[in-house]
Amino acid sequence: MTHAHEKHREHAPKQINFYIITVSTSRYEKLSKKEPVVDESGDIIKQLVIEAGYTVVGYSLVPDDKVKILRAFAEALDDPRVDVIISTGGTGYAPSDQTVETIRPLFDREIEGFSDVFRNISYGDPKVRAAAYLTKASAGIIGKKVIYLLPGSPDAVRLATKELILPEVGHLLYLVRG
Amino acid sequence: MTHAHEKHREHAPKQINFYIITVSTSRYEKLSKKEPVVDESGDIIKQLVIEAGYTVVGYSLVPDDKVKILRAFAEALDDPRVDVIISTGGTGYAPSDQTVETIRPLFDREIEGFSDVFRNISYGDPKVRAAAYLTKASAGIIGKKVIYLLPGSPDAVRLATKELILPEVGHLLYLVRG
Amino acid sequence: MTHAHEKHREHAPKQINFYIITVSTSRYEKLSKKEPVVDESGDIIKQLVIEAGYTVVGYSLVPDDKVKILRAFAEALDDPRVDVIISTGGTGYAPSDQTVETIRPLFDREIEGFSDVFRNISYGDPKVRAAAYLTKASAGIIGKKVIYLLPGSPDAVRLATKELILPEVGHLLYLVRG
Amino acid sequence: MTHAHEKHREHAPKQINFYIITVSTSRYEKLSKKEPVVDESGDIIKQLVIEAGYTVVGYSLVPDDKVKILRAFAEALDDPRVDVIISTGGTGYAPSDQTVETIRPLFDREIEGFSDVFRNISYGDPKVRAAAYLTKASAGIIGKKVIYLLPGSPDAVRLATKELILPEVGHLLYLVRG
Amino acid sequence: MTHAHEKHREHAPKQINFYIITVSTSRYEKLSKKEPVVDESGDIIKQLVIEAGYTVVGYSLVPDDKVKILRAFAEALDDPRVDVIISTGGTGYAPSDQTVETIRPLFDREIEGFSDVFRNISYGDPKVRAAAYLTKASAGIIGKKVIYLLPGSPDAVRLATKELILPEVGHLLYLVRG
Amino acid sequence: MTHAHEKHREHAPKQINFYIITVSTSRYEKLSKKEPVVDESGDIIKQLVIEAGYTVVGYSLVPDDKVKILRAFAEALDDPRVDVIISTGGTGYAPSDQTVETIRPLFDREIEGFSDVFRNISYGDPKVRAAAYLTKASAGIIGKKVIYLLPGSPDAVRLATKELILPEVGHLLYLVRG
Ligand SMILES: [Mg+2]
Ligand SMILES: [Mg+2]
Ligand SMILES: [Mg+2]
Ligand SMILES: [Mg+2]
Repeated sequence: MTHAHEKHREHAPKQINFYIITVSTSRYEKLSKKEPVVDESGDIIKQLVIEAGYTVVGYSLVPDDKVKILRAFAEALDDPRVDVIISTGGTGYAPSDQTVETIRPLFDREIEGFSDVFRNISYGDPKVRAAAYLTKASAGIIGKKVIYLLPGSPDAVRLATKELILPEVGHLLYLVRG
Repeated sequence: MTHAHEKHREHAPKQINFYIITVSTSRYEKLSKKEPVVDESGDIIKQLVIEAGYTVVGYSLVPDDKVKILRAFAEALDDPRVDVIISTGGTGYAPSDQTVETIRPLFDREIEGFSDVFRNISYGDPKVRAAAYLTKASAGIIGKKVIYLLPGSPDAVRLATKELILPEVGHLLYLVRG
Repeated sequence: MTHAHEKHREHAPKQINFYIITVSTSRYEKLSKKEPVVDESGDIIKQLVIEAGYTVVGYSLVPDDKVKILRAFAEALDDPRVDVIISTGGTGYAPSDQTVETIRPLFDREIEGFSDVFRNISYGDPKVRAAAYLTKASAGIIGKKVIYLLPGSPDAVRLATKELILPEVGHLLYLVRG
Repeated sequence: MTHAHEKHREHAPKQINFYIITVSTSRYEKLSKKEPVVDESGDIIKQLVIEAGYTVVGYSLVPDDKVKILRAFAEALDDPRVDVIISTGGTGYAPSDQTVETIRPLFDREIEGFSDVFRNISYGDPKVRAAAYLTKASAGIIGKKVIYLLPGSPDAVRLATKELILPEVGHLLYLVRG
Repeated sequence: MTHAHEKHREHAPKQINFYIITVSTSRYEKLSKKEPVVDESGDIIKQLVIEAGYTVVGYSLVPDDKVKILRAFAEALDDPRVDVIISTGGTGYAPSDQTVETIRPLFDREIEGFSDVFRNISYGDPKVRAAAYLTKASAGIIGKKVIYLLPGSPDAVRLATKELILPEVGHLLYLVRG
Repeated sequence: MTHAHEKHREHAPKQINFYIITVSTSRYEKLSKKEPVVDESGDIIKQLVIEAGYTVVGYSLVPDDKVKILRAFAEALDDPRVDVIISTGGTGYAPSDQTVETIRPLFDREIEGFSDVFRNISYGDPKVRAAAYLTKASAGIIGKKVIYLLPGSPDAVRLATKELILPEVGHLLYLVRG
């Protein structure tokens, strides 16, 4: 008997377009001053997406500011090519962290399990351990698009993208599109 | 004795910049087809704002679509000149009405009383009467900006702008700016 | 110029079917003991609905009990003939009052203005006055059906049905049906 | 026929104990510096309560600070003599206003109608008019106690206490005590 | 020293009655056409419940429809014999999935940990892995009854029932009954 | 490359003051009758905090009562020496369990991941296993203070304090203080 998850995976779209948003005040300020910006986490997501055979159709870099974050997501959501948005940064407990507080209320449906499954596989990493409970990394659905809000750390971004996003995003888009 | 509200009004800013957003699928489609568009409600707001000695610094026309609405508000919020955003349309109970559902979750603080005071003065209008309870017209604060979400009807827009928004918006901006 | 509300009223369905639910522990207990039950508020709603040219297709009497209330509403919602459900009772602040707490979380959309407009016209009645703020009378939409949760008192039921429900329910059904 | 509200009023307790909390940073700072403090709004509530034949059993003055507000309410709630708590101040839209944001989430049940009925009678006062929509004055129930969160202005406090609280608080306590 | 959980388990009721609800549009349509229906997941729950020495007192099969789901739960909740309700189906992210969205708002208390513990043991199954984050399987309490909302897949149902529900449901009923 | 979590840990404050609150009706009643009280879980927290080089600056014992719980937390929050509050007890599903229901609505930000990470490491303990899903143990931030709401069992308290709280609380305070 074929397992249900496997059957769904067969129906997953082969062509998926991603939009990457990096939320980082320090990098944004460098960019504003035309200084060179290294965005390691953004780059990791792009590379993993491409290695998986998917496409990156857009990217933006914004500071930890509710309105700038909102605008970047609104533009990505309004781009008809975009299937999936992944952000990195702003998911923690510093007062400046605003990504989840800004975007989560917009979800038509929150993919509630993304937060806890991500934290629990993070907990399993000896370099992270208890620090795993300090992230609000989240996912949700707006219209027919899927949004992932990842932490800023390169390790966290690699883990989430490789272990959780890429294996299931096609399956999820298939479900969401009804 | 000077009344507290009167004292606050003295401190109100004299120069206030408004951004108007009309939410109307039919007008948006005409615009997309380059047909002439009459936006009576948007025009009423603009005229009343100008007559009050304030300034209109921006305007956009969007359809009843969550993402388009979100984007228009995000751009207005991100415009440093803007103090107040007023929208018209999409506050009722047709399935297409999405303005309040989209923007209210973004309020840092909802100005809860706007909805009920507006409905109750509408109820007093013999042309509206019980239909007054069928609007979700709302107001709220994001950052230091004030947002009003008005119905689409010209009469409703005139009533809200003249009787509720213009008399208190300066006072409110003074409070919100702390 | 024809007013928007008037145009909508023209499109309102002429044939509307109501289901009445009386929530009253004392009457339910009498019914259970096969004693005669006078349900003045339920009777007022029925009579006003019929006088307006509409139809009552169902009625049930339940105690102030979350599960019994839920079941009565579920059966009314599942009856394909029913367009509008009106309940009477259980909208106050006694610990036994559970109607609003039970049904409101099920609304796809709450018709938020019903509560405040109803309270404010009640406040205008010299027999009610400040007691008006002690009701949670509410309305909302589930699927394509409209639900009104009215207080238990005959005067309140008459006021809400005559002044708010009957004048707009056709208009509202027209909107809700998209 | 005796009206239901009148019957309930007959059952209302005759002896009711009030605790008054004034929320005002400026007055609190004066008090801390042992300067003389005039608390006009607090005094109005006390006087009206006493004139109505009820008793004031406690009073505290706190600044617009979440934790100080919380502590004052916790102490009043924990005082077995107290039936009703009335606060004045901190219900507006300045960033410092925190009374409603702090206490409302603690309500077992919010008395939702207090906010809109109060705003609508305030709107009727020509000195207040549209400023009425700028208050979040609220009421609610915790355990068997009733809490009213009033604005800071003497006029608002007098209106709410005379027109809404004193006429119904006995009735409400009777209901709440089940 | 005896562990607290072990002591509670001693007090657990020995006789527990379950009601099973299968939420599946395809099976419901077959049933409506009097075609033979195989409900593998429903059958697994029944069998595991009986093997554990408990009793199945009711069963219903409903489509992925808010009102039908609501009615089935309302009838199960209103059946005085029922201690525990387990549903299977409708917990995912297809637009048709409505079980959790319908029933969760009715919980007096959500058993929040059921969702994340279930997802994390699912993640440990190599056939499920990252797909684990795509379920909203949930549990909660209404009155003195416990409700579990399980996914539709036979493997998920077997895992949840064997590893989470049956080991603790007696303990939980003992707690909930106070 | 130094890992981000390690860098944050370097910035963590060395001196941290804890306030312990035990929520237990049975112990509170003994205390009220001046009988000897053994508070094993409270003692475990104190000992672990001290062994970690931190300080316990306050302690209180309250029954499972919303107002008493609220008051104890309000006093601890209002104590300027206190950095972290840890409570034990009242996080389960007995009707008397009220700690989480009382304090969670006061959080400025909930540290959402604490609940699920704690449950999942509890699940890994063979003495707890599925009982892990029956706790609502939670954490959150009020102002610049961090609050942990732990279960009443000594084993749970030891696990949470050793594995989750002590390793990250300095890091978290550093983040929260901005
Ligand atoms: Mg960051
Ligand atoms: Mg009643
Ligand atoms: Mg003030
Ligand atoms: Mg306990």
